Amino acid sequence: MPYTTYTTYATLLGHWAHVRQHSLNLSAALSAEDCAAQSMPDASPVKWHLAHTTWFFETMILERFETDFHAYHPAFRMLFNSYYNSIGDKHARPQRGLLTRPDLDTVLAYRANVDARIRRCFEAQESASAWQLLELGIQHEQQHQELMLTDIKHLLSCNPLHPALYDTPAMLLHVPAVTPPMQWIAYEASLLEIGHRGNSFCFDNELPRHRQFVEAFELADRLVSNGEYLAFLQDGGYRRHELWLSEGWDWLRQQQISHPLYWQANPDHSWSEFSLHGMHPLHPQQPVTHLSLFEAMAYATWSGARLPTEAEWETAATAEDTRQHLHQLFGVGWQWTSSAYAPYPGFAPAAGAVGEYNGKFMINQYVLRGSSSYTPNGHSRTSYRNFFPAHTRWQLSALRLARSLETDD
Amino acid sequence: MPYTTYTTYATLLGHWAHVRQHSLNLSAALSAEDCAAQSMPDASPVKWHLAHTTWFFETMILERFETDFHAYHPAFRMLFNSYYNSIGDKHARPQRGLLTRPDLDTVLAYRANVDARIRRCFEAQESASAWQLLELGIQHEQQHQELMLTDIKHLLSCNPLHPALYDTPAMLLHVPAVTPPMQWIAYEASLLEIGHRGNSFCFDNELPRHRQFVEAFELADRLVSNGEYLAFLQDGGYRRHELWLSEGWDWLRQQQISHPLYWQANPDHSWSEFSLHGMHPLHPQQPVTHLSLFEAMAYATWSGARLPTEAEWETAATAEDTRQHLHQLFGVGWQWTSSAYAPYPGFAPAAGAVGEYNGKFMINQYVLRGSSSYTPNGHSRTSYRNFFPAHTRWQLSALRLARSLETDD
Amino acid sequence: MPYTTYTTYATLLGHWAHVRQHSLNLSAALSAEDCAAQSMPDASPVKWHLAHTTWFFETMILERFETDFHAYHPAFRMLFNSYYNSIGDKHARPQRGLLTRPDLDTVLAYRANVDARIRRCFEAQESASAWQLLELGIQHEQQHQELMLTDIKHLLSCNPLHPALYDTPAMLLHVPAVTPPMQWIAYEASLLEIGHRGNSFCFDNELPRHRQFVEAFELADRLVSNGEYLAFLQDGGYRRHELWLSEGWDWLRQQQISHPLYWQANPDHSWSEFSLHGMHPLHPQQPVTHLSLFEAMAYATWSGARLPTEAEWETAATAEDTRQHLHQLFGVGWQWTSSAYAPYPGFAPAAGAVGEYNGKFMINQYVLRGSSSYTPNGHSRTSYRNFFPAHTRWQLSALRLARSLETDD
Amino acid sequence: MPYTTYTTYATLLGHWAHVRQHSLNLSAALSAEDCAAQSMPDASPVKWHLAHTTWFFETMILERFETDFHAYHPAFRMLFNSYYNSIGDKHARPQRGLLTRPDLDTVLAYRANVDARIRRCFEAQESASAWQLLELGIQHEQQHQELMLTDIKHLLSCNPLHPALYDTPAMLLHVPAVTPPMQWIAYEASLLEIGHRGNSFCFDNELPRHRQFVEAFELADRLVSNGEYLAFLQDGGYRRHELWLSEGWDWLRQQQISHPLYWQANPDHSWSEFSLHGMHPLHPQQPVTHLSLFEAMAYATWSGARLPTEAEWETAATAEDTRQHLHQLFGVGWQWTSSAYAPYPGFAPAAGAVGEYNGKFMINQYVLRGSSSYTPNGHSRTSYRNFFPAHTRWQLSALRLARSLETDD
Repeated sequence: MPYTTYTTYATLLGHWAHVRQHSLNLSAALSAEDCAAQSMPDASPVKWHLAHTTWFFETMILERFETDFHAYHPAFRMLFNSYYNSIGDKHARPQRGLLTRPDLDTVLAYRANVDARIRRCFEAQESASAWQLLELGIQHEQQHQELMLTDIKHLLSCNPLHPALYDTPAMLLHVPAVTPPMQWIAYEASLLEIGHRGNSFCFDNELPRHRQFVEAFELADRLVSNGEYLAFLQDGGYRRHELWLSEGWDWLRQQQISHPLYWQANPDHSWSEFSLHGMHPLHPQQPVTHLSLFEAMAYATWSGARLPTEAEWETAATAEDTRQHLHQLFGVGWQWTSSAYAPYPGFAPAAGAVGEYNGKFMINQYVLRGSSSYTPNGHSRTSYRNFFPAHTRWQLSALRLARSLETDD
Repeated sequence: MPYTTYTTYATLLGHWAHVRQHSLNLSAALSAEDCAAQSMPDASPVKWHLAHTTWFFETMILERFETDFHAYHPAFRMLFNSYYNSIGDKHARPQRGLLTRPDLDTVLAYRANVDARIRRCFEAQESASAWQLLELGIQHEQQHQELMLTDIKHLLSCNPLHPALYDTPAMLLHVPAVTPPMQWIAYEASLLEIGHRGNSFCFDNELPRHRQFVEAFELADRLVSNGEYLAFLQDGGYRRHELWLSEGWDWLRQQQISHPLYWQANPDHSWSEFSLHGMHPLHPQQPVTHLSLFEAMAYATWSGARLPTEAEWETAATAEDTRQHLHQLFGVGWQWTSSAYAPYPGFAPAAGAVGEYNGKFMINQYVLRGSSSYTPNGHSRTSYRNFFPAHTRWQLSALRLARSLETDD
Repeated sequence: MPYTTYTTYATLLGHWAHVRQHSLNLSAALSAEDCAAQSMPDASPVKWHLAHTTWFFETMILERFETDFHAYHPAFRMLFNSYYNSIGDKHARPQRGLLTRPDLDTVLAYRANVDARIRRCFEAQESASAWQLLELGIQHEQQHQELMLTDIKHLLSCNPLHPALYDTPAMLLHVPAVTPPMQWIAYEASLLEIGHRGNSFCFDNELPRHRQFVEAFELADRLVSNGEYLAFLQDGGYRRHELWLSEGWDWLRQQQISHPLYWQANPDHSWSEFSLHGMHPLHPQQPVTHLSLFEAMAYATWSGARLPTEAEWETAATAEDTRQHLHQLFGVGWQWTSSAYAPYPGFAPAAGAVGEYNGKFMINQYVLRGSSSYTPNGHSRTSYRNFFPAHTRWQLSALRLARSLETDD
Repeated sequence: MPYTTYTTYATLLGHWAHVRQHSLNLSAALSAEDCAAQSMPDASPVKWHLAHTTWFFETMILERFETDFHAYHPAFRMLFNSYYNSIGDKHARPQRGLLTRPDLDTVLAYRANVDARIRRCFEAQESASAWQLLELGIQHEQQHQELMLTDIKHLLSCNPLHPALYDTPAMLLHVPAVTPPMQWIAYEASLLEIGHRGNSFCFDNELPRHRQFVEAFELADRLVSNGEYLAFLQDGGYRRHELWLSEGWDWLRQQQISHPLYWQANPDHSWSEFSLHGMHPLHPQQPVTHLSLFEAMAYATWSGARLPTEAEWETAATAEDTRQHLHQLFGVGWQWTSSAYAPYPGFAPAAGAVGEYNGKFMINQYVLRGSSSYTPNGHSRTSYRNFFPAHTRWQLSALRLARSLETDD
């Protein structure tokens, strides 16, 4: 982790305090019951997120850098370990919702305790690797802030009462009143560099920066909208095998899937969508989200296009002359790419437990680029590689199209 | 339900109020988080029990007898329906733990509302069937009071912290300082009557009272103790196929079972047991509990005995001359019998939704007799037929032995 | 096994030879491919049946009584062990269809070898227990002869070509041209004896003969016909929850069951049935077969009746004054009873491996009485207790109704 | 399919006859029973392969090009359809082993019939697309010839008798007496072309030829041997989580995997391996085969190397100056690459049913390059892209290592 985003350690520590507080803000509207439940093995209780992000600071930093380290609670090391085999045992993931103890107040006290100890530990911290881990901890907590929102959304969606987290109406995000026609931005074939550039923070999976040759292509200037996706659905999109990958077709039929995750067909043939604002009419201009990669690819095939590779996406997102024509790159929905999540040439995971952060997941997952409306401020980068299995739908996954162009050479 | 236990309606209503309060007392030590979690599909959250028992009064009684009935919340009819197909849809049982809304306070308000309406409805209630349903509702709530305890015990046992519900030490129940030798009480072959007698309340499955011929047998005067069961375990009880039913042996190996549900082997080869008082040393004089029928039968085979049938158990429990020699019949642990749960000759379920109460479960379940230390006061009868599948272990299921005697005729 | 059916050992040996030959006759119409396949874990390949019945003679008798015993093939002891843990390891049941080696010819050679050795061994056999095991082996082989037919029927039914085993038309069994009205034969309440009587052969589960008190009841004089069952189906029988046990209703919905196992709805709304004679029109006078206990009970409830207990069935089948009025007791279809398969009072399994024959299955299974058109001649008895789990449908299971009568006393 | 490998149609037809005959040769040593069984859903019976390859010619070619087409058997269109949704229904894959009818003789007659009709159809065939489909059918049959061997191997391995298909000893393939030290062949970073070149036959997934930039790397000159893999195993390779991808580690523990698929540990701590020649001692010089991608990657990590990408593999296999230093590229074992199976830039599947041949599987699978000792002669190409899911082990999957090199630029 030789990179940092901050000019001074004081700025970093200030940002750390801000991010820690933001997690509390996110959960403020939730009851202890809301924070404790787990709706599926893929999702975690909000309380668990609050504890696990704290565990990261205690276990990855304080255990090594705190003078006279004493664990807040000896069992927490195991209880709130997510997947770090190097740390040792961990509580079974599907059983996180059974941890009614420690209760929410205890977890909040745990947070306060670790925060105080972190502050003390970093008052005059001279170890660069400690500061690097602190920055990693901030980024880690921001990732879990997004998961808090997707996980509570999934939990509430399982409730037949369709409760809203926020009692305000759903806001429209970066959305014009009318969906403008999709524009295609063209890129010539070229040898280019992708991967993180410069000295600011990045995850190890964004490195090393390296060369890729990309054939000529064009990229849609905006995301596919709900209205456009509805046309696909109404054209029999979920019933036409020829639009689907074989595994996607099996998945669709086994799971009896006929629409995006949070859509609901109304008796009058209109559609509603569940969000953190409750159940409300589907907005046709809003970008379609909560798609699996299977659905994204089926739509792309139907529309005569395809998904971009991550190299194409990054090329476009960093091209100085076209960048301003590309809308909704960040802050709306993560954009599926057709690229399997794989190590960049020369990739080497970090030493120690943090080496388990990214590298060991580089199989049977696909890369998403950009960021979503749930992504915390300051957590987006053009080189950022999010990744999920192809059937994943509870993330804010969206769809930007690409097309190959004939290369004249 | 032509039977009642009460001499006046006022007594019945008083008892109803007492039972309703007792449910609140049972959950008083629990947090909202504790009340909301569900540890397995067989168990339910305490909050769900609190709501469902209230639903029973609202749906089975108020819907029919309240003037100008208005549901407290239209969705509750479905949310808190357990298994009454006649009522309509029901929330999926394995997803009861996802109902973070309504929260505990709302459920308590629902209880208060229904209680007030029940009081009003019964102020001058003249319908005998309404009063019979009220008595059924009391008995129903008492059944769920026992389940609240077994379900919260199971939930807490899934927590690696082994939290205690009560901070007092575990009490020993009806247990002498030293286990006295097991005595056998003999009964001659005879034609006898079993089933509920008299006009006090009983469930429909306890009727009709009818004749059975029982060959000569003898019954143990007390339950098998932890110490005795430990001797079975240490004699290889869980590794000797010849002691087990075929299905039990498959169950044991698939589930990797080697001891009763809440036992835990310590590094020093001693044993601990988890209870609502936390984890504590196994008490050898305490009756062994939380056995599956498979385990109970394997122990019986190992010890040269067998389980009693329910007719044998009821015979003994009602025999005036021997009853006082039989210990731990009630209030300690439910006693597995070898009798499949089946209708008595001439059994007819009640009309309407309450007809689903018992009869439709009369397959692949086995009868337990007596009652347990979790059974509320006043909920025990010699004719009471509890029933669970043979692999069930999270109930307070215990073991009383029987043996056949040669009949001279 | 202190019972025998034969007056001389020579008669027994002659019958043994006859039964052994009958197994070969049954498989004569089948190809080696037909004999090798396994359609589900519950069923076994015909080749496996041919080998296992031979294994029984080699392992249970020759191993103990043959001078200078040498196994035909050392691996067969494990390969063809069905469920005898006392014998040792066994080949996994669901993988019996993968044993393309030994091939059918080798299994037939194995049969011939063991038959010759049995003949030699019994030329001047003086051990009564050897002769008793020989008789048990005969009965065992007869049980597997019925299974050969039910298992090959199930296998062929899985083939979309609906191949027939026999190229003759399906025969009607004991069936009149028109279904006569169902007659009810009444029986008074009485204390009676059930279980095998006399010194002829029986299985250990038919003993000891003992007393049971049976309340007054009446029994249908014939089985329920296809036509009657069709009326139930057409009256919404498979869609009305109130007719079903809770577990049966769950089973029906999970397995998407809407008719008996081998029925098939035709586009013109008529029905066909698959049998060993191929697919042919459903014959309304033929007794309905291949019912689960769940379906049998649902029909009984719909028709205002119930299933008999096994004591009721045996009472009726042995009552000298009414027996001639009861049709289709034997040789048509096994008749489900409502009795859980349980040990008779005083039951003790035989010592050694044959003790695993019956006793260890006495849980979660239900008794069927009578016999079927697939049962070999000489294998029926009024005390015979067949048993299968409640969801079982691939056996020739049929339905005879009973009703309780008011007792005046 | 605009490509062909043959100079004249007569040569093509001659090769077609040769390939058809080869399938019969492969199954000649097998009994009808061997040919009918299916050991797992991934594998198919040999008889099914014989029929399906024939179905391909009848359905894809004769249906379209035969004058007065009559199906050999109307049900075969469905019975022997593998995965072509465009063709219509198909028999459930896991139930292929239940098709004892049609029997082997009928399938052989089906082959003879279709072969005769194909010959007639192509006597004076003028349609280029017919000839292209014939060539595709040849390639398709060759793929199934390899599967016949892997599938029968898996079936025989499930038999505790460990039967051998061939009674000759296992031959060693391209294997020196002593494993020479592994040599590394270096390649500079370069922009290169991959994909099929020229006009000979290839599958659609090998097109279009396109440019890729490959950073500097080096490739092992031979496959990893059994002896080397044994060293990994004995160094705790299957017990050290840090060597495995997260999903691989879960897979290993759930499936309780501790060695390659056909290895067997002997009581004296030596190892045996099952092959089509039966069970024999593990040969340390032989390349290790039957590895999942998870195992291949874990070994690579343990040895300080990684897997090649498919671009690296193809670069090396086509580099004129180094090709002769690379051993075991073809004819020994398929070599896992780290490349997810994905469309080449500009890929378009063929129109019609054959468009389902490759493209719809481009998700969650990984590419293997080269060919194996089971691959028929003439079926290997440097651009050939074989693909299987990461956990697949029953194919002849082997392991060639690669390493990244520092690029100086």
